[in-house]
Amino acid sequence: MITLDWEKANGLITTVVQDATTKQVLMVAYMNQESLAKTMATGETWFWSRSRKTLWHKGATSGNIQTVKTIAVDCDADTLLVTVDPAGPACHTGHISCFYRHYPEGKDLT
Amino acid sequence: MITLDWEKANGLITTVVQDATTKQVLMVAYMNQESLAKTMATGETWFWSRSRKTLWHKGATSGNIQTVKTIAVDCDADTLLVTVDPAGPACHTGHISCFYRHYPEGKDLT
Repeated sequence: MITLDWEKANGLITTVVQDATTKQVLMVAYMNQESLAKTMATGETWFWSRSRKTLWHKGATSGNIQTVKTIAVDCDADTLLVTVDPAGPACHTGHISCFYRHYPEGKDLT
Repeated sequence: MITLDWEKANGLITTVVQDATTKQVLMVAYMNQESLAKTMATGETWFWSRSRKTLWHKGATSGNIQTVKTIAVDCDADTLLVTVDPAGPACHTGHISCFYRHYPEGKDLT
């Protein structure tokens, strides 16, 4: 069993969310131990909102739930990669992915 | 032009590195302003090592340089997604991706 390194980032694990089918990277968010436990128990993504300082069930408001397909951990056990089947766009802007703009120009990616 | 939010994580931007061809997520690392400038100038990935507190040219030792294809920024401008053509494995363990283990069992992904 893997022991995650919760100490490196003050109790948070950086989490990359990727579409299990298209392989598009949808978003990056943060999990604390409680949100990871809820993700494992429910099979849907839960995060910790750093700005609102609350647990956050992805899609609870928008309906765009993310159903977890696989969870992988990186070599130093401080980051997770979660593949999901999303019920709708990941981004609050309505884009499929939060990474919808080129850097640095800011033009939308097609 | 996009202004990145360098303040949210003490001068660092979380960076997801994805294979431009296979779409496999290879690693997550951190850039400060200098490493992002070097990445943009050279077309190869440079990061900031949080543990060693040094700039880090990916592949400088191993030869496994990552040639940058695209850079995207997320909706709140605190995370980058860099797609690359990697010259070899991203992980120091020799795995193509640092995300080579299932969580929580730890079994290798095939």
